[in-house]
Amino acid sequence: MSKNVNDTIAAISTPPGQGAIGVIRLSGKDAISLVDICFKGKKLSNQPSHTAHFGRIVEQTKMGEQTIDEVVVTIFRGPKSYTGEDTAEISCHGSNYILQKVLQVLISHGARMANPGEFTMRAFLHGKMDLSQAEAVADLIASDSLVSHAVAMNQMRGGFSGEIKILRQELIDFAALLELELDFSEEDVEFADRSKLILLIQKLQKTIRKLMVSFELGNVIKTGIATVIAGRPNAGKSTLLNALLNEERAIVSDIAGTTRDTIEESMTIQGLTFRFVDTAGIRDSKDKIEEIGVQKALAEIRKGALILYMADVSVTTPEMVWSDLEQFAISGSRFLVLLNKVDLTPNLNPEVYFKKNLIESGNLLTLSALFTTHIDQLKDTIYRQVIQSPEMLDQTIVANARHYEALYQADVSLSAVLNGIFGGISSDFIALDLRQALFHLGSITGEISSEDLLDSIFTRFCIGK
Amino acid sequence: MSKNVNDTIAAISTPPGQGAIGVIRLSGKDAISLVDICFKGKKLSNQPSHTAHFGRIVEQTKMGEQTIDEVVVTIFRGPKSYTGEDTAEISCHGSNYILQKVLQVLISHGARMANPGEFTMRAFLHGKMDLSQAEAVADLIASDSLVSHAVAMNQMRGGFSGEIKILRQELIDFAALLELELDFSEEDVEFADRSKLILLIQKLQKTIRKLMVSFELGNVIKTGIATVIAGRPNAGKSTLLNALLNEERAIVSDIAGTTRDTIEESMTIQGLTFRFVDTAGIRDSKDKIEEIGVQKALAEIRKGALILYMADVSVTTPEMVWSDLEQFAISGSRFLVLLNKVDLTPNLNPEVYFKKNLIESGNLLTLSALFTTHIDQLKDTIYRQVIQSPEMLDQTIVANARHYEALYQADVSLSAVLNGIFGGISSDFIALDLRQALFHLGSITGEISSEDLLDSIFTRFCIGK
Repeated sequence: MSKNVNDTIAAISTPPGQGAIGVIRLSGKDAISLVDICFKGKKLSNQPSHTAHFGRIVEQTKMGEQTIDEVVVTIFRGPKSYTGEDTAEISCHGSNYILQKVLQVLISHGARMANPGEFTMRAFLHGKMDLSQAEAVADLIASDSLVSHAVAMNQMRGGFSGEIKILRQELIDFAALLELELDFSEEDVEFADRSKLILLIQKLQKTIRKLMVSFELGNVIKTGIATVIAGRPNAGKSTLLNALLNEERAIVSDIAGTTRDTIEESMTIQGLTFRFVDTAGIRDSKDKIEEIGVQKALAEIRKGALILYMADVSVTTPEMVWSDLEQFAISGSRFLVLLNKVDLTPNLNPEVYFKKNLIESGNLLTLSALFTTHIDQLKDTIYRQVIQSPEMLDQTIVANARHYEALYQADVSLSAVLNGIFGGISSDFIALDLRQALFHLGSITGEISSEDLLDSIFTRFCIGK
Repeated sequence: MSKNVNDTIAAISTPPGQGAIGVIRLSGKDAISLVDICFKGKKLSNQPSHTAHFGRIVEQTKMGEQTIDEVVVTIFRGPKSYTGEDTAEISCHGSNYILQKVLQVLISHGARMANPGEFTMRAFLHGKMDLSQAEAVADLIASDSLVSHAVAMNQMRGGFSGEIKILRQELIDFAALLELELDFSEEDVEFADRSKLILLIQKLQKTIRKLMVSFELGNVIKTGIATVIAGRPNAGKSTLLNALLNEERAIVSDIAGTTRDTIEESMTIQGLTFRFVDTAGIRDSKDKIEEIGVQKALAEIRKGALILYMADVSVTTPEMVWSDLEQFAISGSRFLVLLNKVDLTPNLNPEVYFKKNLIESGNLLTLSALFTTHIDQLKDTIYRQVIQSPEMLDQTIVANARHYEALYQADVSLSAVLNGIFGGISSDFIALDLRQALFHLGSITGEISSEDLLDSIFTRFCIGK
């Protein structure tokens, strides 16, 4: 991606598809004058910042001037804009055809198609936000639940950056003293009190490790908890999916092998997103297409964060269940055993399915997917597999793999500092590790960044942001 | 739908899904003051029209004030707005969660969720556009090709209304003279020159009928031409769909009966949209699920505007083709016979498949879907099934079924007027038919409209427009 901010970029900023309104955004020094070329209405270049203007976007063709759309253009002059540059937003009728066409005309007049995240990258480069705030913008857009929204909003408004910056500042003060020692190294003075440094580092590591631990939760909050519904054919898996979603999403029939493709649907339970994956029933099948489905199912089970293993209790013995769990290699994952069709077996004693350290009362549920018996209880149990206590959500949560990696590296460097002090290693080596720790903490907020880092961050954005 | 314009309506106006920007629009007398309640930034009520303001949308909860999003609000004061009323547009981060949440807060402060098309209906009710222009807004949003866009834009900018209004005005002038006669009926004078009236009506009918004829084209331009790919199993139908789309859309295998669900994909050929429907191969099947697919395929054939009947020429005799055409009852529709897999039968003589008045050189093509031989030729032939000559696109095209119906009724009334004159019927009956014709023409532009009519028009819009 070009870090060049001298040209003017343009992109469709609203989601694809039909809607009442579609917005095209431009940013750069020519953003306003460039729209003027194809805009019939007031001369935008003469208008003040933060004003909106009705007019038409036209194209010059062989057949004369063609109107592409009637639009409203809003202009923002830098630095008081999202990117910090001159910006224009063209609000069109929400047809893909029109939006593509308008974009095409702007590009023919000299705009460049924006790369993913390039508007936000420019905001970062112009100092409108730090790097972890910029990253939160993408998370905010992707947020689809109360919890993921709260985590992203906290990060965008600087909550997480603030915590990192405080940690880093304390360390910088100490590092400065240490560097001072190096200047006076021949005089063998200690400006930096070693015992205070040890205490500070231990405090830092405690905080960093707490943040690192929060990542397991942050990651699933952000991406949704992949919850795979697995089991033998006709166990009632698709019926369960429909019961959970409360709609007829999957085709159900009494024919074993009805589901071939895996079906994925998201739902929110108590503000947390779960991605339920309904898989083909697992059996040896002679049907080539069904066999592909079975292989897909096993792959989903391996990827799942939570497995709902279902069994038709009217035909499945405890031994069969145990053997399935082994065959599916479920036991390494977090899983629940769901004994389905209890309506058909009123005298069921679930305890016969218990097996020490594998199936116990905590991860076994009886239910009837068809009659939606115990579905609410199931939802609650699923939620508690992720959030064991409400306090888990009150702390700062790291939701970004890059931040986790940087925290991890900072932690390693800090441990090296400690080892150096305890091992009586000379100050210059300790200073080196300290600088490493500062580097990693600084990379989170972008006080330290590289071209490659920015590329890898912003290419994950959607186009137009 | 309520024709009440005293309350303030709100809706998400951008397409659903993730994007950089999502827009919520409000219209009504409290639009601006209502946003003020939950907006932290400048007081919007004190700002001039057509200005944009950065701030936060907040929600008051038990846990205190929660920021839902950082937004830009643009305000427009009536009558200089889309609806003619005070309007606010809130530009948020494009997350469904955020948009829903902001909408919810606005509604809690007294906004009402807008009905589909309610913004545009208010624009009509406030005289910002006539009815056929308002209807064109929906067509414009749905337009997905050069041709459908041009037809909708022409209508929105008043091209079609203009033509209707001129016709209607000429008729009104005559009707006024005729009504005058009725006032003086005892004196037996003729203010309205009968021979001139006859000429006028003949001219009107000629124009109306031309517009009516254009509807067949307008309708398929608007909705896309439903083009059904049909034939026996393994004829290569899915391979053809992939070849046309130039991508691997449908699962293909050498197993007959691979396609069960009908697959639909749109593509544009020379600015015109075709909706290709790939159907299950038609045969007697014992597979229950496949059998459902076959029934669906036959239903699609009945609905299709153009049928592409495909045959694997290496195994299908002319007799089999003729019998299929009969069985599928294709012969009533427009259809092309595609002899596929010519790569396997290099010595093919397509003429043996000819049958007088059924299959002739004009509707028979040889091709190889697998090797994409003759695919461009096929696209061209498909296009020419719809647009026989380029001039067809230069005239005013009626694309709306309601307008067609009104034109038809106006034509019937005008014929009655003519019959009346020729039959020497008294002026009051002629005047009655003339009024009917005026009514129908007026209903197109909304000079004459009813609550029910407005309901049926605007409920077809998307929400937020």
